[in-house]
Amino acid sequence: MTPAASLDRLFSPRAVAVVGASANVDSAGHDYVRALREFGFTGAVHPVNPRADEIAGYRASPDLRAIGAPVDLVICCIPAEGAPAVVDACGAIGAPFLHLFTGRLSETGEAAAAALEDEIARRARASGVRLLGPNGLGVYHPAARIAFRPDLPRAAGGLALLSQSGNNAVEAVLRGAARGLRFGKVASYGNGLDLTPAELLAHLADDPATEAIGAYVEGVADGRAFFESLRRAATRKPVIVYKAGRSAAGARAAASHTAALAGEAAVWSGMLRQAGAIEARTQEQLLDLLTAASLLARPRGRRAAVAGGGGGRGVQSADACAEAGLALPPLPASVRARVAERAPALADWVGNPVDQSILAGSGLSANGLLADMAASGAYDLAIANVGEEWFLGRPRAEERLRRACARLREAANAAPVPVAVVLGATEAPEAWQRALIDSVRAEFVEAGLAVFPTVERAAFALGALAPRERAP
Amino acid sequence: MTPAASLDRLFSPRAVAVVGASANVDSAGHDYVRALREFGFTGAVHPVNPRADEIAGYRASPDLRAIGAPVDLVICCIPAEGAPAVVDACGAIGAPFLHLFTGRLSETGEAAAAALEDEIARRARASGVRLLGPNGLGVYHPAARIAFRPDLPRAAGGLALLSQSGNNAVEAVLRGAARGLRFGKVASYGNGLDLTPAELLAHLADDPATEAIGAYVEGVADGRAFFESLRRAATRKPVIVYKAGRSAAGARAAASHTAALAGEAAVWSGMLRQAGAIEARTQEQLLDLLTAASLLARPRGRRAAVAGGGGGRGVQSADACAEAGLALPPLPASVRARVAERAPALADWVGNPVDQSILAGSGLSANGLLADMAASGAYDLAIANVGEEWFLGRPRAEERLRRACARLREAANAAPVPVAVVLGATEAPEAWQRALIDSVRAEFVEAGLAVFPTVERAAFALGALAPRERAP
Repeated sequence: MTPAASLDRLFSPRAVAVVGASANVDSAGHDYVRALREFGFTGAVHPVNPRADEIAGYRASPDLRAIGAPVDLVICCIPAEGAPAVVDACGAIGAPFLHLFTGRLSETGEAAAAALEDEIARRARASGVRLLGPNGLGVYHPAARIAFRPDLPRAAGGLALLSQSGNNAVEAVLRGAARGLRFGKVASYGNGLDLTPAELLAHLADDPATEAIGAYVEGVADGRAFFESLRRAATRKPVIVYKAGRSAAGARAAASHTAALAGEAAVWSGMLRQAGAIEARTQEQLLDLLTAASLLARPRGRRAAVAGGGGGRGVQSADACAEAGLALPPLPASVRARVAERAPALADWVGNPVDQSILAGSGLSANGLLADMAASGAYDLAIANVGEEWFLGRPRAEERLRRACARLREAANAAPVPVAVVLGATEAPEAWQRALIDSVRAEFVEAGLAVFPTVERAAFALGALAPRERAP
Repeated sequence: MTPAASLDRLFSPRAVAVVGASANVDSAGHDYVRALREFGFTGAVHPVNPRADEIAGYRASPDLRAIGAPVDLVICCIPAEGAPAVVDACGAIGAPFLHLFTGRLSETGEAAAAALEDEIARRARASGVRLLGPNGLGVYHPAARIAFRPDLPRAAGGLALLSQSGNNAVEAVLRGAARGLRFGKVASYGNGLDLTPAELLAHLADDPATEAIGAYVEGVADGRAFFESLRRAATRKPVIVYKAGRSAAGARAAASHTAALAGEAAVWSGMLRQAGAIEARTQEQLLDLLTAASLLARPRGRRAAVAGGGGGRGVQSADACAEAGLALPPLPASVRARVAERAPALADWVGNPVDQSILAGSGLSANGLLADMAASGAYDLAIANVGEEWFLGRPRAEERLRRACARLREAANAAPVPVAVVLGATEAPEAWQRALIDSVRAEFVEAGLAVFPTVERAAFALGALAPRERAP
């Protein structure tokens, strides 16, 4: 196994060649080249195409050997039959990394394709070329100005992602961006023929720029190595694993997608827990957990303060916290005294969760109480329900919702404990209402806050990140 | 117990009085009056306020007795201390229904408030006035042009909703509208002091305009009556119950919200199953299940066809179906033959779920295969993943996504089995992308299709609506 540190040139190549580069703007062979240009890649870019002089503004070479300059990463987009020769050429020019976007190999279930994949692996071992893929989208690393799609965000961050599926990686990056997640190193590794998730994880565990790691995994060939790598990574930073292909039907789909051997769901859950990783059971949970890991300080305990929304939302919130293993201690004496001072009739009624609707006319607000609770020392984390539906029905709805959200942003940013904001999905009857919700969500994200569309998702993510033992 | 049919005048009153009507545009006492005007209520409207001549364009009366004309429904917004006298006045003028928006009664936990609530109940029984509430938002019934907020949708439909929480009722109506749900009779009944969920359910079970019933319940005083009413209703139409206050913390919150005795979660789940109702465990599931019940034909069995999205989404979809108890039979010979004709290399590879990414360049499309599968007789229901992230990265993204969605709308509307569309939450980095997703979702909704933000939610809703026994 190559030492993990030596994957640096895969994620941060100084020169990239794209075999199968194309002038067809609707092909992968074009996208990889164009992404390098549009991201402002500062190294050399070598489109390889025997029938073109120039692609996306770069001079094309007829084949890898004609480049005549060092190449750290070769990206291969030609059909599978041509891949073994590309492996050989990488060896000949001394390129250390080959990413095979090329698919239609073992995942097709055909014996001839599987044999071809074996041949690719054999030649790579013989020539010392390390392979990423086949059947994967490859590398997105905005700090190094490399991306597997031109439309991905330019801003770089500390989240890493390993993904057996290319589409799931794209989805995580795009949807994550809308929630304020900034990714650093992302690798879509497809069939994982040579570079395994275990090796990639080892690299990310050691990488000082990586603060938290997410993974979408369908199956691994070497479970022991994966477990060891995961355990080591999880001692250093949060590692969140979404294991798909849990069911028999899912395992069949995984085999035809990335030739993965999916393994048993219960075994995986136990293994993840034992390794100290956090398990996500859906793509949505993967993003929710990355959101919490990336944007919230890790809670010091499991005592939750919840405020905002009406009484029904309060009951929901309490159930959600209980089901996420979070405690809901009552208001401490200091906060209760403050309530008694301003609104004596409420002192024995207001609880945790704080029901916003009973505060009307009292001079107390849910945001104010949330701030008091967060500062009281009685809680380790807080959840703030915006309760936007109430505002939508009031006069001057937009002005009031924006003002309440501005106050919540201040309270959340000043709080000494992590605060998750619950603002619903963009679902409202009128287009202006949806645009307003979209806009206030963007303002929370801009302020660096973690926003969740439901209280259940907020409680789940905080519960998963909080220490397992209740604080004393 | 009043026979259920006699609740007609509660939901469709011929004349309404609002005690505590107010010229303050930011008060409930104004909202109820204004909603009647804005909805075009055709009966008489009597604001009651001793210090106003006119409110929201209606002539005000100093008290109920001064109205001098029959009133079917009195809405009371004054503080709790005045409520007993309003009950008496309703009796005196022969008003059959009193809705008490008025709260701060037993839910405060104070003995004096609880005694006042008992007094209200006693006087209502003595005078034969039926009470809705206290501490509830009351009635929304757009066909009768009555609403508890002026901003609710005017369009009427066949969904009914009972809700112990007012905010949850508003949230369901507003968010539901964005998903194409049209509500008929909605009752927010708060503490349920007199008119119980059991009675309201009995009315809705008999109501020919009600096609499906949703309920948000924190607790019921008479479990046996609720069970019997639920069982009877569930034999006639789908009934979906979201029971909140499942946890100890949730039960405490429920007590301070609507004075509800929440009961044990496991007992509730068993009771709902035995009654033939469908259990939702979150507000989101309540809406997902109402969406399926309202917009999709009930599946005849549990065999699912799934298409669209990449391979990772296929694996996810398979897990989601398996966890929802749905089977994923392989492509039938007829569909496989069609694939073999167009794309021989794919014939033994394409499975169910259909991985859209392997179809590129084959002349086959996920929408086309979905249509073939739906028409083949081998499936009882279908799930279509739009896979919008792929389109967002292609040239002419908007045009292509709109075209694919238009084809999917056609395929879904022509299919002989129910088709759930999966289009993600409005999460994308750029505002134009979010606006585009919002717009194509609105087009699906306009076409009468059921849209779910994740495949897990689509599979859950279809699985819950499908017959429990697998089709032969």
